[in-house]
Amino acid sequence: MEIERALQQLESLQKKLYAYRCADSSLYLDAVTTAPSDTSEGRGVAMSILAGESQKLMTSPETKALLDELSARAGELDLVHRREVEELRRSCEQLTRIPADEYMAYKELCNRADDIWHKAKAEDDFALFCPVLQELVDYNRRFAGYYDASKAPYDALLNEYERGVDRKMLDSFFATLREGLVPLIHKIGEKPQIDDSFLHQEYPAAQQKAFADYLMEVMGLDRSHCGLGETEHPFTLEFNNKDVRITTNYDEHNVASSMYSVLHEGGHALYELGIRDDLQYTCLAGGVSMGVHESQSRFYENLIGRSRPFVEAIYPKVQEFFPRQLGGVSAEQFYRAVNKAQPSLIRTEADELTYCLHVMVRYEIEKQLIGGTLEAKDVPAVWAKLYKEYLGIEVPNDRDGCLQDSHWSGGAFGYFPSYALGSAYGAQMLRRMEQDVDVRGAAAKGDLTPITAWLREKVHQYGGLMEPADVVKNACGDFSAEDYIQYLTRKYTELYGL
Amino acid sequence: MEIERALQQLESLQKKLYAYRCADSSLYLDAVTTAPSDTSEGRGVAMSILAGESQKLMTSPETKALLDELSARAGELDLVHRREVEELRRSCEQLTRIPADEYMAYKELCNRADDIWHKAKAEDDFALFCPVLQELVDYNRRFAGYYDASKAPYDALLNEYERGVDRKMLDSFFATLREGLVPLIHKIGEKPQIDDSFLHQEYPAAQQKAFADYLMEVMGLDRSHCGLGETEHPFTLEFNNKDVRITTNYDEHNVASSMYSVLHEGGHALYELGIRDDLQYTCLAGGVSMGVHESQSRFYENLIGRSRPFVEAIYPKVQEFFPRQLGGVSAEQFYRAVNKAQPSLIRTEADELTYCLHVMVRYEIEKQLIGGTLEAKDVPAVWAKLYKEYLGIEVPNDRDGCLQDSHWSGGAFGYFPSYALGSAYGAQMLRRMEQDVDVRGAAAKGDLTPITAWLREKVHQYGGLMEPADVVKNACGDFSAEDYIQYLTRKYTELYGL
Repeated sequence: MEIERALQQLESLQKKLYAYRCADSSLYLDAVTTAPSDTSEGRGVAMSILAGESQKLMTSPETKALLDELSARAGELDLVHRREVEELRRSCEQLTRIPADEYMAYKELCNRADDIWHKAKAEDDFALFCPVLQELVDYNRRFAGYYDASKAPYDALLNEYERGVDRKMLDSFFATLREGLVPLIHKIGEKPQIDDSFLHQEYPAAQQKAFADYLMEVMGLDRSHCGLGETEHPFTLEFNNKDVRITTNYDEHNVASSMYSVLHEGGHALYELGIRDDLQYTCLAGGVSMGVHESQSRFYENLIGRSRPFVEAIYPKVQEFFPRQLGGVSAEQFYRAVNKAQPSLIRTEADELTYCLHVMVRYEIEKQLIGGTLEAKDVPAVWAKLYKEYLGIEVPNDRDGCLQDSHWSGGAFGYFPSYALGSAYGAQMLRRMEQDVDVRGAAAKGDLTPITAWLREKVHQYGGLMEPADVVKNACGDFSAEDYIQYLTRKYTELYGL
Repeated sequence: MEIERALQQLESLQKKLYAYRCADSSLYLDAVTTAPSDTSEGRGVAMSILAGESQKLMTSPETKALLDELSARAGELDLVHRREVEELRRSCEQLTRIPADEYMAYKELCNRADDIWHKAKAEDDFALFCPVLQELVDYNRRFAGYYDASKAPYDALLNEYERGVDRKMLDSFFATLREGLVPLIHKIGEKPQIDDSFLHQEYPAAQQKAFADYLMEVMGLDRSHCGLGETEHPFTLEFNNKDVRITTNYDEHNVASSMYSVLHEGGHALYELGIRDDLQYTCLAGGVSMGVHESQSRFYENLIGRSRPFVEAIYPKVQEFFPRQLGGVSAEQFYRAVNKAQPSLIRTEADELTYCLHVMVRYEIEKQLIGGTLEAKDVPAVWAKLYKEYLGIEVPNDRDGCLQDSHWSGGAFGYFPSYALGSAYGAQMLRRMEQDVDVRGAAAKGDLTPITAWLREKVHQYGGLMEPADVVKNACGDFSAEDYIQYLTRKYTELYGL
């Protein structure tokens, strides 16, 4: 085949895959924002057919032949095409190895598991969820073999969310974090706690919405390309680099909740909006990995959004939105309140300092579940033990314990560590960024332009063009947890006068 | 092939087509409700690829072979499968006759035409739209030949929107309407006009929203299967018979606008929600034609919604929603105001009596355009002439004249007559319904249950199982315009004391 013709086919294949992704995203977005309550069945039929068509396309003999040919002629391709072929071939081979009926059965199980998990969580009934959790674990152990039989199962799963990461790397990473953070948390526990009660007055949703619009403006998010919606759980969804949606949830008794979720999701959105145009409609459009994505979201949420200069810069405006609630509260009080560190039960509500310990609990449990050394039925006990050990708190029930997150019921094992990795990547990027950009100065002016420009140049633009580890390395050198620990130690030592 | 196997393939084909429709609907719904402003390009890429895939599926040799085989064995099929095969074969053959490149070029033209029309309308510049209108006409004349070469072009187009309808039938129908209605309208012109100024006070959108919810409740629309959204132009969109969305637009200076658009779209929604379960995910799911659909929407909007017993029944509640605006207005005054008949320029704002004359203007122009006896450049003059002749009014500009509707710019020629047909179908159904149901009594109680039950039994349930004319005949006998003219004559004679 002429190389031009093959490249045309490659483009056409990827555009079709893009179209199926858009369809899926649109139906999903509708489901969680607008759709009437009892409409999931018909939508499920459509979504599963479209997913099947996309998978069929990805694994067809024509696709395989095309990718094999282009792979054999990789020397004739430019970098972008070479990477596309690599990525698509990996997906094609992986999907081909999963028997179609097993894949369908697993998808069906995930749907069912989600329903059961909702019910089990609502009723605080782990016994209800336990058998399905074990089934999910068993499937994932088998699927890990399809993904990469040369790796131990949990390593193969980790690799799906953050390529290049394995237990060895994470064991060392988390051990370093624990050594650095647990003593710090203990010391804080002995200090008088920060008063954050004013964050929990009544904050009407309408004003919070206007405030969210303001925050998006401060972030430099172009509203003609980035929408803001409302869902139970905030998320970011991208159609392409000109069409990204973020959502938030307005808790009328916690102004920080929506505020920091907008900054968080806005960070994800800036990443997607910053990806190069020439990668659009290809498999390289979109952020490269969960970990790198979290590095961006947590950068804006914490490293900038919870920094003193940024809080001071926007605080007069914050007071304008909530004069009744915050008129008598100083910027410093507000800064301290949004940084209050206190061991707690719920990961998504955890503060910047203790957050990673929540992740570690899940990592240790997943590692054992997928490794086959822990059964689903024993998860609650291990959960309680680890929360006591890492965070020093008792877990009163499973609803606020091992049933709190939706990840496992959705079939995602190996996903959690990317939250912690992202936080660490971000701190390392900040350290490197400070050599080029007056970060504190920019934050103090409430002008994030130079910060976003740096991240766009070093991280965003590449999309999936480089491996996650190479993106990190390119931005800030070989990965290490040190900058992250130093950052937290300095911040909290000052904050609590340790 | 085993017949069971062929039927399985038929089911699978239709489910895939359903999935593509859902994807298209979802992306469209997002575009007009939620999507940020500058996102059409990426969505357009996805939508056109998905449309292409759906069309490819519909016209593939495998599909053709399957439909040919099932058609040859029609005697072995039950009614539903026989109708499915008939409908799918027609679509397949029609699409096959349209050269793919011509089809793509036409779709591209429609996209372009829509942009140009928006601009031309905003700037009241017919000259801008004129060349593209002529191009659209030329394409449609050619396409008519692909649809059905045995028919004159405009008949072939009419048949696409309301099967079985042609110029002969419509010429006679519209002549009857003109004879019946034009003298009535003239007589009303000599009477003192009804005061409807109180409808145009300030009606805040938030209260109108709550009122819309109430109206949906009165209509018996199950909100767990029927959503209400907000768009520039109200519409109804169905995913399946368990998932329908209607939209409205809140004009803060016209309470009747949203009120009657909710009743109208709600009528469409009841139709879709009432279709039999066993037709779901097939080509027979969904209302059978534009005309029958309009018969349902205009039934609830006008025959019920603008009837005295219904207005009287809900009026105390209407006053509760708008005490300041309507506290001093009686039910009778309100009833008369929402039925005020007065020749006007804009079709979508026309009253029940003069509405069909707007349709006739468009019918006469389309007939000549597609017939080749009128050129696009002469449309404004003919438009003005016919508005003068039918409605007795001067057309001051093209924005409020021939540029007012989006239909032509979207490529829809032959669509307009179904609005008038639907109104007449509805009146005939009402006449027949009154033999079985105490319609006025039900409306007077504000309980539409027996009315909807009758329509569901006679019309809704069948979806596309029967031809449009057979649906009408099955519900109320051979079609005639008489009931419609009688209904309007009685109502307006009484209302204006003629």
